[in-house]
Formats: sequence, C-alpha cells, structure tokens
Amino acid sequence: MKKINSNQFTLYGINSTICVLDCNSFEISSIDILKDGRAEKNNLLMKKISRQSIVPTFYKKQSFYNKYPDVRSQGIVISFYGHLITKEIPDFDDLSDVCLLALDQIEDPQNFGQIIRTAECAGINGIIFPKHHSVSISNSVLQVSQGAFVNVPLYEVTNLKNEFSRLKDNGFWVIGIENSIKSETWDKIDYTDKTIIVVGSEGRGIREKVLDACDYKATIPMQGMTNSLNVSATVSAIVFERLRQIQNNN
Amino acid sequence: MKKINSNQFTLYGINSTICVLDCNSFEISSIDILKDGRAEKNNLLMKKISRQSIVPTFYKKQSFYNKYPDVRSQGIVISFYGHLITKEIPDFDDLSDVCLLALDQIEDPQNFGQIIRTAECAGINGIIFPKHHSVSISNSVLQVSQGAFVNVPLYEVTNLKNEFSRLKDNGFWVIGIENSIKSETWDKIDYTDKTIIVVGSEGRGIREKVLDACDYKATIPMQGMTNSLNVSATVSAIVFERLRQIQNNN
Repeated sequence: MKKINSNQFTLYGINSTICVLDCNSFEISSIDILKDGRAEKNNLLMKKISRQSIVPTFYKKQSFYNKYPDVRSQGIVISFYGHLITKEIPDFDDLSDVCLLALDQIEDPQNFGQIIRTAECAGINGIIFPKHHSVSISNSVLQVSQGAFVNVPLYEVTNLKNEFSRLKDNGFWVIGIENSIKSETWDKIDYTDKTIIVVGSEGRGIREKVLDACDYKATIPMQGMTNSLNVSATVSAIVFERLRQIQNNN
Repeated sequence: MKKINSNQFTLYGINSTICVLDCNSFEISSIDILKDGRAEKNNLLMKKISRQSIVPTFYKKQSFYNKYPDVRSQGIVISFYGHLITKEIPDFDDLSDVCLLALDQIEDPQNFGQIIRTAECAGINGIIFPKHHSVSISNSVLQVSQGAFVNVPLYEVTNLKNEFSRLKDNGFWVIGIENSIKSETWDKIDYTDKTIIVVGSEGRGIREKVLDACDYKATIPMQGMTNSLNVSATVSAIVFERLRQIQNNN
C-alpha cells in the first residue's frame, strides 16, 4: 500500500549533508565541494566525509558556481538515493504519549518542509500525508526541513480516513485543527494521550470527510484582521502546546 | 531617529490587494488585472477597486503573463507608495498586557514576513527591528506577510538596547528566547504583563549585548536531533503560549 520512493535527491549545505551522512541509510551518489569554501574548512564535516566510501569531487570557484548557480550551498552539494517513505505506520503499543501529525493536502513544499522541521524539534513521532492531492517529497521539501527528514518517519497513505480508523482502534484520538469559532480553543484539548493532530491545506483547510473522522476539533482564535495563520505556524503553536502539556504532566 | 520609508511596493494576490485597499493609508499607483482571471471574478475585490480613484488596467492572458511571469498572482498585481515605518514606539501607558516582538538581526525576508503574519494573528502590538544588519521591509517581506503588515506597527530603531531601556522604564519586561539549556523553559515565563519578546538571527541567535539587556531568558527544549527550530516557528510557539496565558488569566 505504501509507495517505495527511491528517487535521487540533491541537497545543499553543511547541516543537510551532515544529517544525510549521519543517518547511514542512503546510498550517496556524489558529494561536490567548493575548493577553499566554508564546507571544506569545516573539520567535523570533512571527517565524516572521509569515512564514506565515495570520494568527493572538489571544484574551483567558477566551475562550482556554474554547476550550482543561485543557491546558498555553503560550498557543498550532496546527492543520494533515498527510500524516504518506506515505513508502515506501527501500532505504537508501547508508547502512551505518541503523537502523529496528519497533513490533509498540503500543497506548498516550503510549508511541508517547515512542518517536518518543526515536528522533529517538538518530538512528533511521524507525519502522515495522503498519496494524492498533496505535495510529494521533493528536493525542496527536504532542503527546507534542514535535515529533519532523516529523523521523522514520513508515512504516505492512500486514504487518511482509513488510517485514522485503524489507529483509533489502537487507542489514538484524532484532533482536527480548523479555523472555526465553533471549535474548542486549542489549549483546552488534551494532547497527552496517543494523538493524531490533523491540519488542512493552505487555502481550504481539512476536507469535510476527514474532519468527520476527528474526535475533537480545535481552533486557535485569530486576534488580528487577516484571519489566516500559515499552516506551518499553526503546527508550531499546536505541537509545542502538546509538548508543554506532556512536560507538565510528567 | 526612525526612517520614513516611502518606497514603491508591488504585491500580488487577492488577499494582499484587499489589505492594501482596506487600510486606506497608501497611495495606489497601479492595479493590473488579468482579464477573466480569478481576481476579476471576485465581486468583493472588484467592488473595493471600483471605489478607488485609480482605474485598473486589464490585460489579456499573454500580456499579463509577459509582464508578471513566474508569480502566483491570482490575476491581480497592486503597486503603491507606502510609509511603512513611520511610528515612534508609544509608551502604551493604557495597556497592561501589551506585547512587542523584537527581532535581532533577522536576515531572511521569508522569516520576517512569516513573523509579521504570525504576530498579527496572535495579537502582538508591534514589531521592533534594528536599522542595521537586518533584512529591510521589501516586497518579499510584505508578500509573505499576506497583508498582515497593514495591521502590525513596524518599528525600525537605531539601537535595540536603548529602546529596551526606555521601554523598561515604562514597565516593560524583556524576555530573550535563546537555544540554551541554562534558560527557563518557555512556558515557565509569565507573558501577561507588558512584555517585549526578543528573538535572534537565524544562525547566531541574539547578540550578547542584546541578551544582557533581557530580564528573563527562555528556551524551547529541542526534542529531536537537528536542534534548530526555524525562527518563525519559534515565534509562533512563543506568541501563542503568551495568548494562552492571557486568555486563561482573564
């Protein structure tokens, strides 16, 4: 049911490179380094590279910038083959405060990448997203995630609702975050159990049928005139409210 | 001391255009509309435009996309002259729970724009940023803010520390958010008084001398391996923790 995604990806920058090298689960196809650049001067990075079987290619300034124009690479570009979406969603029987994030039709790679990064920082245990009508795992998504994608399982599913149903049988509560004054305010919800937090697409929110599958609906009441919080900012507010509750609960 | 910023700005999209029209404090220099596009079909928008003294220009598909390639404009582009940084920071004598956000050397327009948007949604009363070593108010910043910039006062100052000193004399507490295990966790800080929340630049955090001026230092403990939350995600977590405290306090 889950797609095995084995494309080649290319990422820039020291942090992303270190994350890819450290996680040891990708096949590195090339490492391009700018001669006398910031990356080459980073001892930790160069030590990690020297332990790889692949030999990096060093480029003089002009050739490097010809090959990689218009990117803030910090003088390093790594390409690798990745199986990024390989994991079936486990039952998490042993964990009582596990939290998954479900993204219903996120369309912007920037938002997807930021959400992965934020989720990792907040200790979220995985991200579920639908196979169709969602931005797919691309270089942009991974780049924006700043390496966090190696630490957060990414679960691509055919049908969000079916997945919720299965997880609910395993003790999960599903909480939909929507922009509606009829919902509970976000901090009145208990996130300390097994929880799936659902956010919707940038323009349209969570689809009706997905919302129907939620046990609770929560909202962050908007205090301004624009009435629209970016979805990755919404995720940040919610996952750190969850962290606050978890830490005060223990 | 504050710079009067009277540049021309150009923004895309229905929301941004409506915000600019509604706030009535800019001189509109042009409105370009794609014939039969999404904007032209938006009655509310077209009604607001018809009330302006300026007459919009309608473009056929090819001419519009020639003029504005590679942007998601929703068929509308507005240009205006703006005095965006005109306000001296008031004393806020009448407000007890006023909160300002101070950005110490934010360098990325995307982050700056997102922070303006998030701040407006969370009811922040203004954003202070230094004149030097900070990204300036540009089209990108305003575009990302999704129109929120018309509702959040933007205070550009010469010296953050001096400004803090003046505001502290007026009853403000200054809280620096840093990535340090020595700091208090973010939710143990009281944000319900007159508060300035300070965040630092993407790579280097808050400068030492600015940090010295903070009454409290707070941190969001990182739960993952990457150890770096994006600054706009940090802001979101903090300003909504403040909102939670304010709402539970009343």
